[in-house]
Amino acid sequence: MRDRKIKIRFRDCLVLVLLWSTPIYGQGTGTLGVVIERNTGGLVILDTEYRKILRRVEHLGDLSHATIVFSRNEQFAYTFQRDGWVHKVDLLSGKKIASIQAGKNSIGGAISQDGKYLAVSNYEPGDVRILDSQSLEILKIIPADYTDAEGKTQTSRTVGLVDAPEHRFIFSLMDGGEIWVVSSRPPDFKILQQWKQVGNYPYDAFLTSEGRYYLAGFLKSNQVVRLDLWNMEAGPQPVSTLDANLESPKVPMYKVPHLSGWGMADGKAFTPVISEERLMVYELKTWSQLQSIAVYGTVVFAVPRPDERELWLTFAGPKNDTLQIIDVATFQIRETIKLGRGISHIHFTPKGDMAYVSVRTENKLMVLDAYTHEIQETLEINGPSGIFMVPRAHRIGL
Amino acid sequence: MRDRKIKIRFRDCLVLVLLWSTPIYGQGTGTLGVVIERNTGGLVILDTEYRKILRRVEHLGDLSHATIVFSRNEQFAYTFQRDGWVHKVDLLSGKKIASIQAGKNSIGGAISQDGKYLAVSNYEPGDVRILDSQSLEILKIIPADYTDAEGKTQTSRTVGLVDAPEHRFIFSLMDGGEIWVVSSRPPDFKILQQWKQVGNYPYDAFLTSEGRYYLAGFLKSNQVVRLDLWNMEAGPQPVSTLDANLESPKVPMYKVPHLSGWGMADGKAFTPVISEERLMVYELKTWSQLQSIAVYGTVVFAVPRPDERELWLTFAGPKNDTLQIIDVATFQIRETIKLGRGISHIHFTPKGDMAYVSVRTENKLMVLDAYTHEIQETLEINGPSGIFMVPRAHRIGL
Repeated sequence: MRDRKIKIRFRDCLVLVLLWSTPIYGQGTGTLGVVIERNTGGLVILDTEYRKILRRVEHLGDLSHATIVFSRNEQFAYTFQRDGWVHKVDLLSGKKIASIQAGKNSIGGAISQDGKYLAVSNYEPGDVRILDSQSLEILKIIPADYTDAEGKTQTSRTVGLVDAPEHRFIFSLMDGGEIWVVSSRPPDFKILQQWKQVGNYPYDAFLTSEGRYYLAGFLKSNQVVRLDLWNMEAGPQPVSTLDANLESPKVPMYKVPHLSGWGMADGKAFTPVISEERLMVYELKTWSQLQSIAVYGTVVFAVPRPDERELWLTFAGPKNDTLQIIDVATFQIRETIKLGRGISHIHFTPKGDMAYVSVRTENKLMVLDAYTHEIQETLEINGPSGIFMVPRAHRIGL
Repeated sequence: MRDRKIKIRFRDCLVLVLLWSTPIYGQGTGTLGVVIERNTGGLVILDTEYRKILRRVEHLGDLSHATIVFSRNEQFAYTFQRDGWVHKVDLLSGKKIASIQAGKNSIGGAISQDGKYLAVSNYEPGDVRILDSQSLEILKIIPADYTDAEGKTQTSRTVGLVDAPEHRFIFSLMDGGEIWVVSSRPPDFKILQQWKQVGNYPYDAFLTSEGRYYLAGFLKSNQVVRLDLWNMEAGPQPVSTLDANLESPKVPMYKVPHLSGWGMADGKAFTPVISEERLMVYELKTWSQLQSIAVYGTVVFAVPRPDERELWLTFAGPKNDTLQIIDVATFQIRETIKLGRGISHIHFTPKGDMAYVSVRTENKLMVLDAYTHEIQETLEINGPSGIFMVPRAHRIGL
């Protein structure tokens, strides 16, 4: 380039410098959050402390059932979308940094313990793919092949993908009824363990918060299977048959359940009963059945407040205009709150002072005081859905 | 100012713009950490992902026994120092933003659940002070006055200060043997509850990670007292007498114990025995005694790896050159590692892949692989002591 001399005002140059360095970068990222804006196929980036919309990222594609993980330093969000796309979004600038289609029909994703790799769980093609978290380059495809009852090789949809301690990913084969453990380390991302015939159609799974137990639920049985990562030799063990046979009126199934809908609080698991309007309570260590709580509708999510004293419930279908709050100590209903149509997701601030609630049909994101249950703020979002705050970057199992 | 026109190269202007906007601000803050540099009375700000020293903050005063909390957005660190000074440090610039002397002899501090207030716990004068976290202005002084056995009003040192759910601070009166709960909300920061004669000389206390139990230890008895925040009416209850009478050789007490030295893992409390070379194991819910583990020295800190499978121990006095690692599942010693003189603090990265270890006398901060236990990196720090990573911003009880 030729070294052109142009006349420029010193003051203009200063202004340019100042504009360029305005403090969109000049703050901590610990209070950032992301809300899926379903109607625009975009993300809304929030300041969760001051309850403000900071910026929007649009045109990311089909964000139904999308999930998000964050980079270790909280600068980047990675979307895992039903349409197979993975986007890397810079939360500080609101810019899309990289994108890749990692499947035709994806159901979930996870980030490795060291933050260097992503794993994508695909229904179609049936596999798990490992991506470089910097570039999104696909480094490895792990086909979910299994042998069916007739001895033929089939390919399964994969579900219940989590990152686990000791640099591992764990997932389940929905059609194959298997659980696999793979290394989250290059170059091989080796399959470390595979258990066959663990149950009939695992539909989802999750890892307990400290990272010890991988729990899988099954569509065609009431069984729950638990893999104890401290005792891998034992393999996945059935821990309980979820009792769905107590007296309770049946209602339509509005939504395929997922295990992230289970609430863990006070050493107990609060599990929604499919097609019924109640919540079962199990002792987490023994899986002994403690209680059946009659609630307002079919529970979609049972979300514990961070101090575990309350469990906030959302409901499916026509009853999704209501939030119900359970007292974890007494199993009593503390409060029933109408917020408007389409209550879908709840996310508490990490220290538990506020609850963010998506009220999708009303196009509102509401912020409630976690203790008084009063609405503190209402933000306009075009079809708000999943809510994700950056402290998730520091949790195993996501 | 007169509008001077000067000749400036367009390229120079661009360079200036680029320099001005270099990414000291252009990244997430989720991987920042702070190490106390005792010999310089300063802080070292780290990138804990890339294991690098980013910048230093010097001349903050006496940082022995200093503790640190972070602002909600992770931009600011607040020091609570033995010399009574509280400094607010911008982690992004490494600059001291505000300072105040909030006591003559301070022992600890906490940040309110909403991040707006700090509380300082003073030995001298015996009180707790509430500060504005923006300006550090002292908003309220709560004198720790109590009535002694002769009916005289005395002032107590305060200890075991924590932030608790529902916008509260809790602390203990060391000389008064009381536990107080105060509101962390203005304008009054009201005293909500006070329990008298809860035990003989509480020396420290802590809040369990979900924020439910406040546990206090006593210098002049082996009792542990537990306040269940879900059942405040019951008040502080003795839950156990720590059994220090098993056969075990006595050694000198090199250090006043603190309860942050207790390790909680797998539903169990691992508590060092004062002046003995063993660790007691209690069932956390019932406080029944499970085991006495003979270890290498007098334990100072028992730090659980985030997956709770291992407990890493540091030792007092002449045995402080050694790290010992306990298998939480079997109570066996997995490994004994010599790292050099003055091993003092351990802090794991939040997802548990690395352990940062201060080796003070050697002027080294070592980073160990949390699973292989191998040294991955050694950083030069002039007398490293306490290590604090920013995800603490999102935890209650600090």
